[in-house]
Amino acid sequence: MDIRIINPNTTTSMTALIGRCAQAAAASGTRITAVSPKMGPASIESHYDEALSVPGILEEIRHGERDGADAYVIACFGDPGLYAARELAHGPVIGIAEAAMHMASLIGNSFSVVTTLERTVGMAWHLAERYGMRHACRNVHASDLPVLDLEKPGSNARQIILEACRSALAQDRSDCIVLGCAGMADLCEDLSAELHVPVIDGVVAAVKLVEALVGMRLSTSKRGDWARPLPKPYTGMLAPFALA
Amino acid sequence: MDIRIINPNTTTSMTALIGRCAQAAAASGTRITAVSPKMGPASIESHYDEALSVPGILEEIRHGERDGADAYVIACFGDPGLYAARELAHGPVIGIAEAAMHMASLIGNSFSVVTTLERTVGMAWHLAERYGMRHACRNVHASDLPVLDLEKPGSNARQIILEACRSALAQDRSDCIVLGCAGMADLCEDLSAELHVPVIDGVVAAVKLVEALVGMRLSTSKRGDWARPLPKPYTGMLAPFALA
Amino acid sequence: MDIRIINPNTTTSMTALIGRCAQAAAASGTRITAVSPKMGPASIESHYDEALSVPGILEEIRHGERDGADAYVIACFGDPGLYAARELAHGPVIGIAEAAMHMASLIGNSFSVVTTLERTVGMAWHLAERYGMRHACRNVHASDLPVLDLEKPGSNARQIILEACRSALAQDRSDCIVLGCAGMADLCEDLSAELHVPVIDGVVAAVKLVEALVGMRLSTSKRGDWARPLPKPYTGMLAPFALA
Amino acid sequence: MDIRIINPNTTTSMTALIGRCAQAAAASGTRITAVSPKMGPASIESHYDEALSVPGILEEIRHGERDGADAYVIACFGDPGLYAARELAHGPVIGIAEAAMHMASLIGNSFSVVTTLERTVGMAWHLAERYGMRHACRNVHASDLPVLDLEKPGSNARQIILEACRSALAQDRSDCIVLGCAGMADLCEDLSAELHVPVIDGVVAAVKLVEALVGMRLSTSKRGDWARPLPKPYTGMLAPFALA
Amino acid sequence: MDIRIINPNTTTSMTALIGRCAQAAAASGTRITAVSPKMGPASIESHYDEALSVPGILEEIRHGERDGADAYVIACFGDPGLYAARELAHGPVIGIAEAAMHMASLIGNSFSVVTTLERTVGMAWHLAERYGMRHACRNVHASDLPVLDLEKPGSNARQIILEACRSALAQDRSDCIVLGCAGMADLCEDLSAELHVPVIDGVVAAVKLVEALVGMRLSTSKRGDWARPLPKPYTGMLAPFALA
Amino acid sequence: MDIRIINPNTTTSMTALIGRCAQAAAASGTRITAVSPKMGPASIESHYDEALSVPGILEEIRHGERDGADAYVIACFGDPGLYAARELAHGPVIGIAEAAMHMASLIGNSFSVVTTLERTVGMAWHLAERYGMRHACRNVHASDLPVLDLEKPGSNARQIILEACRSALAQDRSDCIVLGCAGMADLCEDLSAELHVPVIDGVVAAVKLVEALVGMRLSTSKRGDWARPLPKPYTGMLAPFALA
Repeated sequence: MDIRIINPNTTTSMTALIGRCAQAAAASGTRITAVSPKMGPASIESHYDEALSVPGILEEIRHGERDGADAYVIACFGDPGLYAARELAHGPVIGIAEAAMHMASLIGNSFSVVTTLERTVGMAWHLAERYGMRHACRNVHASDLPVLDLEKPGSNARQIILEACRSALAQDRSDCIVLGCAGMADLCEDLSAELHVPVIDGVVAAVKLVEALVGMRLSTSKRGDWARPLPKPYTGMLAPFALA
Repeated sequence: MDIRIINPNTTTSMTALIGRCAQAAAASGTRITAVSPKMGPASIESHYDEALSVPGILEEIRHGERDGADAYVIACFGDPGLYAARELAHGPVIGIAEAAMHMASLIGNSFSVVTTLERTVGMAWHLAERYGMRHACRNVHASDLPVLDLEKPGSNARQIILEACRSALAQDRSDCIVLGCAGMADLCEDLSAELHVPVIDGVVAAVKLVEALVGMRLSTSKRGDWARPLPKPYTGMLAPFALA
Repeated sequence: MDIRIINPNTTTSMTALIGRCAQAAAASGTRITAVSPKMGPASIESHYDEALSVPGILEEIRHGERDGADAYVIACFGDPGLYAARELAHGPVIGIAEAAMHMASLIGNSFSVVTTLERTVGMAWHLAERYGMRHACRNVHASDLPVLDLEKPGSNARQIILEACRSALAQDRSDCIVLGCAGMADLCEDLSAELHVPVIDGVVAAVKLVEALVGMRLSTSKRGDWARPLPKPYTGMLAPFALA
Repeated sequence: MDIRIINPNTTTSMTALIGRCAQAAAASGTRITAVSPKMGPASIESHYDEALSVPGILEEIRHGERDGADAYVIACFGDPGLYAARELAHGPVIGIAEAAMHMASLIGNSFSVVTTLERTVGMAWHLAERYGMRHACRNVHASDLPVLDLEKPGSNARQIILEACRSALAQDRSDCIVLGCAGMADLCEDLSAELHVPVIDGVVAAVKLVEALVGMRLSTSKRGDWARPLPKPYTGMLAPFALA
Repeated sequence: MDIRIINPNTTTSMTALIGRCAQAAAASGTRITAVSPKMGPASIESHYDEALSVPGILEEIRHGERDGADAYVIACFGDPGLYAARELAHGPVIGIAEAAMHMASLIGNSFSVVTTLERTVGMAWHLAERYGMRHACRNVHASDLPVLDLEKPGSNARQIILEACRSALAQDRSDCIVLGCAGMADLCEDLSAELHVPVIDGVVAAVKLVEALVGMRLSTSKRGDWARPLPKPYTGMLAPFALA
Repeated sequence: MDIRIINPNTTTSMTALIGRCAQAAAASGTRITAVSPKMGPASIESHYDEALSVPGILEEIRHGERDGADAYVIACFGDPGLYAARELAHGPVIGIAEAAMHMASLIGNSFSVVTTLERTVGMAWHLAERYGMRHACRNVHASDLPVLDLEKPGSNARQIILEACRSALAQDRSDCIVLGCAGMADLCEDLSAELHVPVIDGVVAAVKLVEALVGMRLSTSKRGDWARPLPKPYTGMLAPFALA
């Protein structure tokens, strides 16, 4: 099974980290290809960044389709371009916020999300609402770490996230932690060991969910909202995005 | 007051129609500029089209900021790029679905949305949910008209929309109609006269709402989710979108 | 355009203040008439006061209809008698809580309400629920100021409200402030300057919304719940309220 | 135990009918006094009628307090003035819509409301929402009978209501019926016998609930929203409503 | 009227306490029989305990049916087996959480639940959600008292519960208290006297509600979800539970 | 990986069918053991049946723990005993309704449930509500087939279910089908081929989800509601259920 993981930002060191975490968790028959778009923002920390990550994501989906990928993971906690990607792809497409929240709701009565900057808190709540997870999501906590500091030596990222998790569990009386950024994937196991509660990383959760869906021979329904887009003219810089 | 109305598709005849309807409803001191993006889809009928309309919308917001526009209307019923646009603009930004639903809720206990293709029904429900309008939105009805047929002579668009409205009012026992596409703006008055209920077109609703906000000297709060995006590198075709 | 603003309490100095704020924000062609009922409570701080403000409000609506008013604003944050007023009037009728909450939701992802006495907090929540604004309303905060102290020299009202706003923003991590009493209308600009976030006063918001609706030639749908009341006998002191 | 039942309209034949049904269901030690206001509408079929029934209701509550009533029932399906009445009374106050919906939710997984005119349907939904009964209320059905026709010989009311109930049960797949008007109280037993499902009349439900509350020595909390109104001046025709 | 109160745990001293509180509140014509199951857990503090209390509860319902009981109360705040019991019984069946929450919502705008162990908090929230009481339930507070300590001399239970109530009222700004365990029934009056707000015990609330329902000749609808179970084979230890 | 699938009813032919479907979908390293309880109902078609299936389920969980099972599936669409089972087990426990609804929400914007008897419709809605899936669940449709008829030659079950699915898709305008009974597992592939939409069987969905969770080394959080039950005495027939 070929799973393409799209890191929606263009920071390739983060793409590599995501790829390693994904491969480590994948089933033996699963081949992971982690890619970054050829265009767009270096990190996603606003609706502006998120919106402009989408053309690059959709280009990668088209490459994946050309190459025969079986399924896709969109590895940014805002799940950018998820529904558009579903319209394009033959196989299933899962976002990491979606994956993490669903998985968390199966092993805890409630969860807390620990994310990066305060300004992304609203996005996380919108997704919880959209996915039917508002009842399970006790709160969303910002650690005030910029996304790219997660990888920066000396940023003390691990310690800051750990403290944010501890404080979230205490305040929210919640059962588990959802990590709110793909760049935290490599901290997951360690945090869980320290906190003695399940910690859910969306990258791995999404890999396992698409493996499950492909294993069930299920993919996005083409009957309704997510049918293949109608062909039509596209102009300007985006002309190559026109579908046949 | 300078209001820039962005028709997110690249069909300039629709942009002109939208501009005429907007200008007709604007206050005497309001100057309307209706624009289309320089890139993107000819019409918006999928999440794919919607996602790829956003770079062009954001470019127009940047042009508007350069030119000193006071406020913006995004004139597609999916409200594409609304939150990203709010992050960029100094003045208020309103989407037409948002505008129409809020206005409808002030003059009726409930409304029915009449839209174009069946596949856009889910998008309209997502917006109703997001804006707190699920209690007021009785249902969303597809007329099965493609967006660009609205302008096509011989498409019988007016009659098809009228019948869809009649049937929506009867089925939903609702108090008024919300038109689910910017391309229906010119039908509004006529439909209302035939149906004897208020018919709300989002283009005009959004123009009046931004006039109201500017009149109150109110604009998007920069304290939270919609603060100005942080500067960062953008690469590839989207490099020009990097903010200083 | 003739807008009648009804201050539901009988304190005429507050009516004058409301009228001044409304006129200052109105469009050039708008004529504001601010009135108080000829009967009822000096201030509204309970469901009892609110219920007994309604006959006076409805009498003012009837006077407005006689005089050809184009639209109405009910200037008390409980929006008393709103639906009954809509049944009576030809033009649109807007309550200030409704107006402020809708406007706030267009410029912020969330808002905090700052109101007068603790006992009015529940009313504000009921309205947020009714208008579909529970998702946007982070909390309602009492300043513990009685309504009429807002105008009393030496009550320190401005400072008390300012502190309540500051504390609300900090606790709620919200994007803007909604003022929970018509008597705070004159503080709005000043508070916004100090707090560096949008502060929304419902009186001005409602004036701009009815201007917008009248500009769109929209009024309350007479198809459903808010059709004109059926004629019928009324007895006792309320006999004059019988409609022909 | 002295229970005062207030029929909010001034039609005394309906008051007598309500009193008879209430007394028939009351416990042996309960004394029922059914009263009509001295002012207000002959029937309640709009928000306007409802709002103007409230002064008369509150006057009756004050008479009840003077006379030492133990509890009150407000016998109109819109529950007019309920919260204001709670502020005034020492004993509990229950509305018949509230009573019927709560009782129905204890004996069925879902209920259908059968009411009078179409225009009252929205009011019933607002109450279901307010009381937390939206999940249980499958739908609200108008029988198109004006309130006072319920008592009119030759109106065929019994048959029309029966048919409306049958059709509601079939359409809604619901477990029981809630009668949406106090004037239907005397039909309850007969309808239940014909339909073979529980039929809940709010008048009797409210009598039994206030008996239960008084039996538990419980009454409205005076800590929050429903504390006694503050004394203040009232003017004009409503001056007598000022509280000491 | 014969009311059977089933204490779902097998601790007979608690059954006796529940019986005394119930009888003290019952109407003069009501005969209370408080029973414990012949099988199951000594106290209910987990979903496991709760699930295994149900066979014993259902056996008691069958005994009640054999003996001609008119109605049933399930006296554990998790309302175990409530819907199964309704399928079996001819008369109404009420759980104490359900009873307490409904009664609380009639006398306060909001309530706080004070319960035993932290691990039962989630169950209470699930019930609040199920019964439509999420809007009224401000929060659920654990006192960290194990159930059987409520009766243990020297456990200081009364003081611990009192403090938990005080703190709940202060934190939640709620109007009344719902006691979250049948074993607290005897503290109700005393707590109310100290706290000056209504305190609702579910045992007494349920007794009064079933008296009310029986007085209205209402019982569980047999039309839908709660129809009598179909006869079918049961095997093993549970073979005696097969219905004819 | 050892997965124990518990068919909560005692009909072993259905257990065998479930086991075959599960094994066919399992990963190569997964060993499926399908078991039936030694006690309880032959089929589950009421809350009574469901409640009495739980002791047998919990006994099987204890056997599984003794034998070192890695995870559990509860294979009845009511998800009986799910939370109690989670308290007992070291590995994850998933119900098939939960599994099917979550999976459906990842591949469709909405789903329809097709189930057996009308009286189970309410249970399915309760679960949709509990799992946050009310927004995605368009409706629940009864096929009026008793559970055990699914396996009965000559019952025409396949055709009846197919028709129910077709009619559900047409009425609900939904994107996919969720099968509402474990006994339908073997029809899944065939139905999907005929209907041209994804059809989700909960048995297979649950197997793939527990494989995913075990693959992520995640299990039920023991911090909150689902901590291991406290040891305590159990009496009577259920004494063997006491935990050490």
